[in-house]
Parts: sequence; C-alpha cells; structure tokens
Amino acid sequence: LLGSLAVGVTVSLADIEAQALAALAPGIGEFVRGGAGDELTLAANLEGWRALALRPRRLVDVSEPSTEATVLGRRLQTPLFVAPTAMNALVHPGAERAVARAAARAGAAYCRSGAASQTHAEVAQAGGVLWSQLYVLRDRGLTRNHVAAAAEAGYHALVLTVDAPVLGLRDHDRRSGLLQSATPQSADSGMATGALATQLDPSLTWADLEALAGESPLPVVVKGIGRGDDARRAIDAGARAIMVSNHGGRQLDGERSTAAALPEVVEAVGDRADVLVDGGVRRGADVVKALALGARAVGVGRLPIWGLAVGGEDGAFAVLDRLAHELRVTLALCGTPDAAAVPRDLLA
Amino acid sequence: LLGSLAVGVTVSLADIEAQALAALAPGIGEFVRGGAGDELTLAANLEGWRALALRPRRLVDVSEPSTEATVLGRRLQTPLFVAPTAMNALVHPGAERAVARAAARAGAAYCRSGAASQTHAEVAQAGGVLWSQLYVLRDRGLTRNHVAAAAEAGYHALVLTVDAPVLGLRDHDRRSGLLQSATPQSADSGMATGALATQLDPSLTWADLEALAGESPLPVVVKGIGRGDDARRAIDAGARAIMVSNHGGRQLDGERSTAAALPEVVEAVGDRADVLVDGGVRRGADVVKALALGARAVGVGRLPIWGLAVGGEDGAFAVLDRLAHELRVTLALCGTPDAAAVPRDLLA
Amino acid sequence: LLGSLAVGVTVSLADIEAQALAALAPGIGEFVRGGAGDELTLAANLEGWRALALRPRRLVDVSEPSTEATVLGRRLQTPLFVAPTAMNALVHPGAERAVARAAARAGAAYCRSGAASQTHAEVAQAGGVLWSQLYVLRDRGLTRNHVAAAAEAGYHALVLTVDAPVLGLRDHDRRSGLLQSATPQSADSGMATGALATQLDPSLTWADLEALAGESPLPVVVKGIGRGDDARRAIDAGARAIMVSNHGGRQLDGERSTAAALPEVVEAVGDRADVLVDGGVRRGADVVKALALGARAVGVGRLPIWGLAVGGEDGAFAVLDRLAHELRVTLALCGTPDAAAVPRDLLA
Amino acid sequence: LLGSLAVGVTVSLADIEAQALAALAPGIGEFVRGGAGDELTLAANLEGWRALALRPRRLVDVSEPSTEATVLGRRLQTPLFVAPTAMNALVHPGAERAVARAAARAGAAYCRSGAASQTHAEVAQAGGVLWSQLYVLRDRGLTRNHVAAAAEAGYHALVLTVDAPVLGLRDHDRRSGLLQSATPQSADSGMATGALATQLDPSLTWADLEALAGESPLPVVVKGIGRGDDARRAIDAGARAIMVSNHGGRQLDGERSTAAALPEVVEAVGDRADVLVDGGVRRGADVVKALALGARAVGVGRLPIWGLAVGGEDGAFAVLDRLAHELRVTLALCGTPDAAAVPRDLLA
Repeated sequence: LLGSLAVGVTVSLADIEAQALAALAPGIGEFVRGGAGDELTLAANLEGWRALALRPRRLVDVSEPSTEATVLGRRLQTPLFVAPTAMNALVHPGAERAVARAAARAGAAYCRSGAASQTHAEVAQAGGVLWSQLYVLRDRGLTRNHVAAAAEAGYHALVLTVDAPVLGLRDHDRRSGLLQSATPQSADSGMATGALATQLDPSLTWADLEALAGESPLPVVVKGIGRGDDARRAIDAGARAIMVSNHGGRQLDGERSTAAALPEVVEAVGDRADVLVDGGVRRGADVVKALALGARAVGVGRLPIWGLAVGGEDGAFAVLDRLAHELRVTLALCGTPDAAAVPRDLLA
Repeated sequence: LLGSLAVGVTVSLADIEAQALAALAPGIGEFVRGGAGDELTLAANLEGWRALALRPRRLVDVSEPSTEATVLGRRLQTPLFVAPTAMNALVHPGAERAVARAAARAGAAYCRSGAASQTHAEVAQAGGVLWSQLYVLRDRGLTRNHVAAAAEAGYHALVLTVDAPVLGLRDHDRRSGLLQSATPQSADSGMATGALATQLDPSLTWADLEALAGESPLPVVVKGIGRGDDARRAIDAGARAIMVSNHGGRQLDGERSTAAALPEVVEAVGDRADVLVDGGVRRGADVVKALALGARAVGVGRLPIWGLAVGGEDGAFAVLDRLAHELRVTLALCGTPDAAAVPRDLLA
Repeated sequence: LLGSLAVGVTVSLADIEAQALAALAPGIGEFVRGGAGDELTLAANLEGWRALALRPRRLVDVSEPSTEATVLGRRLQTPLFVAPTAMNALVHPGAERAVARAAARAGAAYCRSGAASQTHAEVAQAGGVLWSQLYVLRDRGLTRNHVAAAAEAGYHALVLTVDAPVLGLRDHDRRSGLLQSATPQSADSGMATGALATQLDPSLTWADLEALAGESPLPVVVKGIGRGDDARRAIDAGARAIMVSNHGGRQLDGERSTAAALPEVVEAVGDRADVLVDGGVRRGADVVKALALGARAVGVGRLPIWGLAVGGEDGAFAVLDRLAHELRVTLALCGTPDAAAVPRDLLA
Repeated sequence: LLGSLAVGVTVSLADIEAQALAALAPGIGEFVRGGAGDELTLAANLEGWRALALRPRRLVDVSEPSTEATVLGRRLQTPLFVAPTAMNALVHPGAERAVARAAARAGAAYCRSGAASQTHAEVAQAGGVLWSQLYVLRDRGLTRNHVAAAAEAGYHALVLTVDAPVLGLRDHDRRSGLLQSATPQSADSGMATGALATQLDPSLTWADLEALAGESPLPVVVKGIGRGDDARRAIDAGARAIMVSNHGGRQLDGERSTAAALPEVVEAVGDRADVLVDGGVRRGADVVKALALGARAVGVGRLPIWGLAVGGEDGAFAVLDRLAHELRVTLALCGTPDAAAVPRDLLA
C-alpha cells in the first residue's frame, strides 16, 4: 500500500515523514513536525517506546488475531485513533475530512481538532467513530456552541484538552513565522493556533470539567493527563476516559514521555475508565507496548498528517493501514493475538 | 588465517563483514546484514554482549585449555555452532555444504536452514555434527518429509524454530525488492524466504511440539525461546535443548537481546536440558560471556556467511577458526581454561 | 523582544549565545563560554537540568501566576538573579552597570562580580536588588575595603565565594592566551582574573566566614557550596543564605552538577536559610525544576553576558525578560502558578 | 612547562597525545595508543574515571598541600608512578632511562618494563624510586636472571605481571604489522612484545607467586589484579602491594575498568598491603578520584611516552609535572590538601 504513494521507495512510516517534509513548505512542515522548546519531550516520547523491550511468548496459536478494541462502549476494528492536529488544510485541501475518512476505512477512531479547518458537520460526512477535541475558551459561549455542534453532527465523544492553559513555547513556529502569518480556513469553532492562543482560558479547573461532564450530551474524555492523582480526579469529576498525552511534545517541554506516565495512570484508574495514550508512536511495536502497559487504544497525530500531505485521503489511509498491519504482525510475533488482552509481562 | 582471505588487511571479523558487503550485490548483502523494522533488536543483540564486563581470575594454569563442549550428548571441539541462515547460494555457489564443511573442520556444529538452497543429503556430505532447522508448515506433509529427509541423511537433531509464526517486518528487503524477486535454487524442503512466508503456520502450539517430539527419530531443539516460562513448557513438551534466539533481530523488532534473555532461561531450565544461544556474537569475548551466563554452545549466523561470501568454504572456516582462536585467548586471559566450566562470577 | 536584538532570527536563548560568540573576539568569547579542564562539569550542569522530567498538574487555575520570590527578606519580581561574571567590560563598554540595569528592569537580583570592571558605586546606579561577590584575598585590607564599599554603595548582601581557594585549570584561557594578556579596566576591588588568581587566599576557613559574618554590616551569602554538611557548617558560621554553585564549571572539573547537589543541600538546610542555585540554567523549565528541588531563586551567569555582548543593556534585559517569560509559561503549563510554592512531586 | 614542548599551543595532556601521534611512525604510534580487540576496555578505563563525580569540601585551609605518598615504605613526592610500557626505544633514543629520569625529577616512582629496550643498570642511572616489571617466562632461568639484575641494580620492588598468561588480541598491531617486524634494541631480560609473546608462561599459578615472594630479595607487587578474592590470595601468597590494572586495555578486551575494580580490591585488602592502580588516567582529577577510592599511588603509562616522543626526557618530565600540577590544584579545589588522606565521601 505504501508503495503506491510515491515515486521513490516507500517502505516504512519514516519514509513518509521525509517525503512529506520535502513536499510541504518549510514553515508548514516544521509546524507539523516540531515540538516545544528544545524538543526534549518530543524526543523522549519516541525513545520512551523504543526503550521498552519485548518478551514474546511462543507457540501460541496466532492464526486468528483480533485487533478489536472497545472504547467508550464502541467497537473499533483496530485499537488506534487519530489524535487531533490543528489546521489540516495547511497540509492538503482534503483536510480533516480526508483524514477522518482514512480513519473510518482503517477501522480507527478519529478525533477532530479543536482548531480544525473544517466544521464538525463537514468532517462528520466521513463516518466512523468520531470524537471532537474541545478547548474550553474564555468565551464560554463558543464552548457551548462547540458542544452543540459536535452533538448535532453525531460525534461520539468530547475530548477536553487540559494541557494547554496557555500555548507552549513553540520556538520552531516563531522561527518560521507561522504563528504570526497562518490564516486557516476556519469553521464553526475552528480557529488557528495563533488565534486560539489568545482564547485559551488559563483559569479552567476541575469544577469546569465537572460542569461540562454534567451538562454534555456526549461522554467526556480528558486529554493531557500525565499523573495518577490527576487521572483519579478527572474520573471523580465525570470523565469517562483518560487520554495520557503531552500534546505530542508541543506544550510543556521537559515533561516526561507518555510511555513513562502511562503505568502510573493505568494503576490509578483501574477499571473505572478507559485509558488512551498518544505521543511518539511510530511503529506497530510501539502500539503493542502501549497496550501491554494498559492502554485501550493508541493515538497517532503526525503520522496520518504526513500521509495526508503526500497522498490526501489515500495517503492517510495507507499510513493507518500500514500501522495496523505492523500491529497485527507484531501481535502475532509476540504470541499475543488478542489486542485487547496483551499481558503486562510482555515487557521486560 | 584471515590474512589469506583478501587483498587488503584482514584482521578482525568486522573487516570481513565490510569485505563481504563490498563484494555482494547490495540487495543480497542487505538481506544477510539486515534486521526487522528499525533494527533495534539487531543493535541490542550486539550491545547486549558488549555491555557485559569481565572480572578475570589471575594465576590460574591456562596452559592446557579445553574448549570441548557436549551438546545433546555429542562432543564438539569448540562450543560454537553455525546458526541457520537462508538461501546461502545467493552468496556463494558452495552454499550450505561449504559452510558445513567449514564448521566440521573447525569442530563446531552446523545447523542447516529450513530455507536452504541445498538438500539435506547434499549438505550432509560435509560431515561433522549436523542439525536441521525445521519450520512446521501449513502442509504438514512437507514437515514429515523434512523430518524423514533429515533423519535419513544422518542429522543429529531437529531445530524447531518457533519465533516465526509469521514473517517479520523486513523493511530492508522490501526496500531492495529481494523478497519479491529472489528465486533460490531450492531442494527437498528448501524454499525461499518469500515463498516460506506464505507457508508458515501461525497456528502452531505446544501440542504440535509435543507431537513432534514424540514422533521424531531425532532429538528436538526449540529455537527462538526468550522467556523462562516458555523454556520450561518446551522441556515439558519434550524438547531436549533450548536455543535462546530472536532470529538475529530479523523477526520481532523490539525484542530484548539474547544476552538479556539468557539468564532467565538458564535459571528456569536448570539441568533439565542444554541451553544454547545465538544473536549478536561477533568476538571470542562474546562467546565467553554467553558461557558464563550458562550457555552450552554459542551460535553465529552472519559471520560465517561473510566468510563464505569472501572466500567460500575456506573463508567460512577462517572466520570460525578465528573466532575459536579468540575464544581460546579470551578463556586464557580470564583464567577460565575450561570452556565447559566458566563461572558466573566472571561477569561483573 | 529577542527579535529586536539581531538581524537574523533570534528565537531562543541558544540563538543569542551563537550570535555573541560570532560577535566577540575569540579569546573573549571562549573566556565567557568555557569551563575548566575537559568541561565535564560545564556539560553536566546543563544535562543535570535537562535530565529531570516534569509531571505537570492539570486543571489548576493559572490565570493569575505569581513569580514573586523573597530572598534574604527582599522581594523579587522573578526568582532569578544574575550570577557574578568577571570583567564585563571585555564584552561591552556598558559592562556591569548595563547588566545590573537590565536585572533591575526584569525584577531580578544582580550580583556584582568580585572581579568587576566597574566600582561598587558605578554599578549601584542601576538600582534594584544588589549583591556583591566577595573573594577573601591574602591582603585582608582589600577585603575590608570591599565590604565597606559595598555597604556604602547600598548593596544588600555579600556573596562570599568559597569554591576558588586557587584558580581552576582554565585550559581554554591558556589556549587563547587570555589569562596572560587581559588587562581589565579595574575599579575599587575589581581585578582581572589573572591578577585575582595571585591574590586568592587558599588558607580561608570556616573561622574566616564566622568572623566576616560577625563583622559584616550586610548579610552574608556563601556561594559555591555543593554538600549538605558544608551547608550546615556555613549556616552555623553565620551565613544567611547558601548558593549551590560550582562556579559555572570553571573551577573544579569533575564536580557533580548543581542539579545533583541541590537536593542534598536543601534537605540539610531546612528552613534555616534561603537556598539559591546557579549553573547550567538555559531555559525557563530549568528554573522551574530548580524551584521544585527547593531553590528560592535561580542564577544565570553566561546568558545575560551573551545579551550584553549582542545588545548592551537592552540585550541583557531581553535575555532576562525572555527567561522570565519562559518561566511564566512553564509554571502555567505545570499547573503550579506560584513560583514560591512549586511542589517537589512536580519532578518524576 | 608544556608550552615549551611544541611549536603549536600545548595546554592539556590531550594536546601532547595528538602531537606525539603526528610525530611517530603510524605503526609505532598505534602500538602505544591501541588496546586489545575492539578497545572496549581502553575506552572503559577513561570513562570509568570521568563518570565519577566529585563532592568537594569548602573552606578547608589548602595553603600547605601535601602530595607525599608512601608506597612499600618509601616516600614519593607525588602519588604517581610510571607504569611499564614496552620498547621505549621505538619512540625515542633516550628510551626508558629518559623516562625514569623524568619520573625521578617529578618525584614519582618509575617501573621499568619487562620488555624494556635498556638494561636494568642503564635505566637505574636515572635514580629515584625504581621498580622492575617481571614476566615469569617459560625459561625460569631468565626469570632468575631478571630478579638478580634488578636487585643488583638497586631496584626497590619487583612488579609481577599476572594479566598476561598469553598475549592479548592486538588487532591494531596485526593491522600495522608491528608485532611481526619490530626488532627492539634489547638488553638483559628485555625482549620485544612479539618475542615476549612466545615466552609467556601460561602455567603460572599462585604457587609460583609464593615461591617468588619467598626467594626474592625485593618486595613483590602483583600487577593486573581486578578482583577482591584474587587480591586476598596474592597477599596470602606474599605480595606486598596490589596493582589494580588491566594492562591499559591491551590484554583482555571486555574487562571492566580499573575504576570499577578498585573499590572491591581496596575493601578486600584493607590495611594488609598497599593498593595501586593504573589505566585510563589522563587528568589530575582522575588521580584524586583514584585516591578517594583508596589507591596509594596512581600510574600512567601512555602519557609519559607521548611526552618522550615529543621531547625526550624533558617531554616526559613536562607531562608528569603537568599531571602533578593538576593534582595539586584539584586537591586544593576539593578541600582535601593531603593526597594521603582523601576521603571516600569526596565522590558522589
């Protein structure tokens, strides 16, 4: 599948990143690739998964593997989701809807960004399992509109992002000037990162989460949790799932990797809620490691955007399909054919 | 000995790898050299041995060193074996028989690959201690033929490979196109890696091992074990030896190194069976470290193939002879002149 | 702010170091940048902070952040101080006073070097919270003059430096010849590093500290402490604050990082005195990590000098202002809006 | 002092290594610089010291530092010794005597190599504290002659080398051809490394040490110990001092660093004998770290040979003098002015 994307040889997902960076305007490519500050967390996210070593089981019948996952009571064909990324129209005119269709084709969930370039309704035409990232803004009217639009368009969950009370130190974007000049093709609640930064509400607290969870017609996922105590508070306040995330290393540089944070959160949550994770996932083996640590599903943000940049919807699909393929092969080689039951002792 | 192999200066085994890669067609060289995925396990295998530090004993009489080893009741002059590698005819027309003769000359065991380019009988002309790697295929008739051919040709053991229920993610071969185009000069059960991939049986279980061990006229070694619990189950099912292996980093990328897995397996096995190991061994000191961790014999896969590529049988022999020489020197310098009794506390 | 400093793109503080090194004569640039010996401690200082990973809290109201700090009973707008660096006139004619004014504008404390190129009085025109670094010299009359001059000029503390009984092995300066040729525009007690080296008193003991603390009209900070037991002795001898420092890696190469030393000192001191720290701080996140480990305020030495070199007072201010900005953003992203109450468990 | 050695800028001891390598024939330079195998131990020796972090004490009177050391009852002005290195005439016509005179001038002990290019008597003209390295050879008559020659020439100790029952895997010398072609200007027991290799006695045991210690008119130091149990056995057999050494990484590649082995040996020996160490020492700080771990004196092998290569006796002296200077400065900066009483808690 990946082979059809490009003239050159495209074998691994790393190839696609290189192709996309070559194809995009530098400022846009850097906007997608970069992280905050010195990119310590960006690098730690990748290294966090790579440093975990597998202890595969042998002579297990892996002829009928299952990658099904259940998140918030909904069935996914593969335990993957597309994590929200801002302003996809900067990368390809197909934008969010193209990626959402790719996710639906791959059997993964799709999370529309709170800074999307297309409306909830436009994206929802893609079908599949749809989540809507929500930033609670200073103007709470905007937030109410957002929730209503998501519900009306048939989204299945709200993903409240809590790791962005202010915008991170995006040196790479300041270098390229993107934060100043980007003018996204906005939509209902869609707004550019630059504009969003001025609207972020730094006064958000657990009480706001409790209010939102109480009023929302959709289940609320809290995205950006990195500690066990916070995970417990989130569930106490009404969250139905916890997404361990550090915003792909784009917000707090120096935060530990999500691979490092995940075990503490899983232990704190127990079976009270689903735990999801994103950040630094580049290979099927990374997904298996996250499942072994207790994640229900695993998110990728930049990967499908590279696919989108290189080949639109088909490119994004090829990426997700390749990742799902790597996941199946890795599960088989680990002797753990059921993605929903990967044991903790698979890790050394 | 190594000096005679090449025009340039050939001193260490690393020199031969470079010479072979220069001599072979790139796709072939990469096929031998490469590992799965990002080659994390390939690298970990090498680093695993290198990171172990030696605590040599002094003033021990090392004037009469012994490198003899007993594996499956058979005496080897040196505790080495040639691990199976596919389709050696791609590298040199002498193919498997040339390497087997080199092993016999060096006093090491030889394991014919289940994807060999020569028949069991052709390879057996080499003499020496001979093992036959076995993949249990979807068509069990092929497996029965394989076992019969090995027994008839006088092999001394079957080496059932259990780390390949499916083929690993061989990005390097997809890049070079080898998996698609290679058409080996096949034989009785010999088949190319590409063809083999379609025949691998992912439904293999411990029951199949038990059946094989019960019916086989030859003792069964289980290759590809990386955990203590699996080693115990293998012995319970009739295995006579355990080969700790991760397929040279060519199957499950992210699996821990064999140096990391070996102690757990040795402890689980106790004296119920022989423990063998391969993966990442490049120096005599690596062999000594594996012996100190409890291995009975230590395998090398790529090294003799580099020798084969550069100098046919003599090249493969030079490599094994050099490794055996390094082993003897290292044993002497460690104050542990008996390869069969290297103490655990030789390692820091 | 940083954008106005240079023609090229200036985004992070690392950019300014490169610009300053390009602008300064090589010997001068190296004098500022370099460390003792093989610069192991210089590198360890940076890595010490970077290696600490953050565990941010979420959904804390960070809309009214406070960076106020109280050191020696005086209020700072930001928990930063400018650590003493010698002979600033080598870098820019504005010299120490320019940096002191920048510190005052940024709300940080300023510590005049004991090898400054301007007098106490000249520097004091800058206003703000002023400290005076003191080397106790062989000629104790010079020391008495120094204390008197500092007191008369309205400084708020003496910072007795105890990590320089002799000059460190400044290979980089011997290489450039700076130690031999530099002739600073000296002042009351100001003297060049080369001249200072001959005046350092290696016989200084705790009794001297006790005497100084007893006689001084100003509170005494002891700078250069790296162990808990020494910190306790310093307080017993009358010190009012402890500055954990290894002289920016310019004295004892091989000394551990200040990030590694800080916890031991904080634990030993308890609430008996304020603990300050410098060394290797390059980012707002480094400051937050130091605060989490118990520092009251955090010093930067080279950073404002790079700013001074590139843009005089405004350059030094831009650096401090940027660092304070990074600090505020990082505190918000950590969910710890009060710089004076950063919890220890913010670190993994 | 170092400044006078060369046309270019010579500041640190690393500069001299580069100068010497540039001046010597490549095979000779490599012979001095290289280690066995992949040079893992050579690198580990250096990293072993560098990785130890110092916790200096402050406000200690360091105005009257003492670097005196007592080894085998003899006073040294500095706790340094020149470790034996073979065939110094390959490097400079002054050869061993030049280095021995440099050592005497610097107040360090000198250990003549068992493969020296000058006789015991020729070297002894240098004066100072003199030790004689001894290889016990197959022809014990040669050994008896060696002991007699050393005693007659007034040497103060025999240094029995026990880490060379056979010659290590000197790939670098095989590469350069040195082991085959070198024909040193030999002397009484002096012989080239190549010739020596054929004479090494691999049957040497503790009984031989006991016999030697019983008959020798000189105290016996055992060189090449790397474990506590061996150190105890050596003392039981009559050794008066233990030299922790791995032959500068030239014998058993993969052996742990001497910095890693030293604490175990010091603890096993207690006050029954002096403990010495060599291997990887390049800086005065390395010497202080070895003293803190319990060494009485610290050896350097390659460093004075680089000095010899660049400047004969004066070059070797400059190196030792610089190292002693770095040692004094480092002791002062550590607040440990007495080299004979460096506390263990100086290390983190």
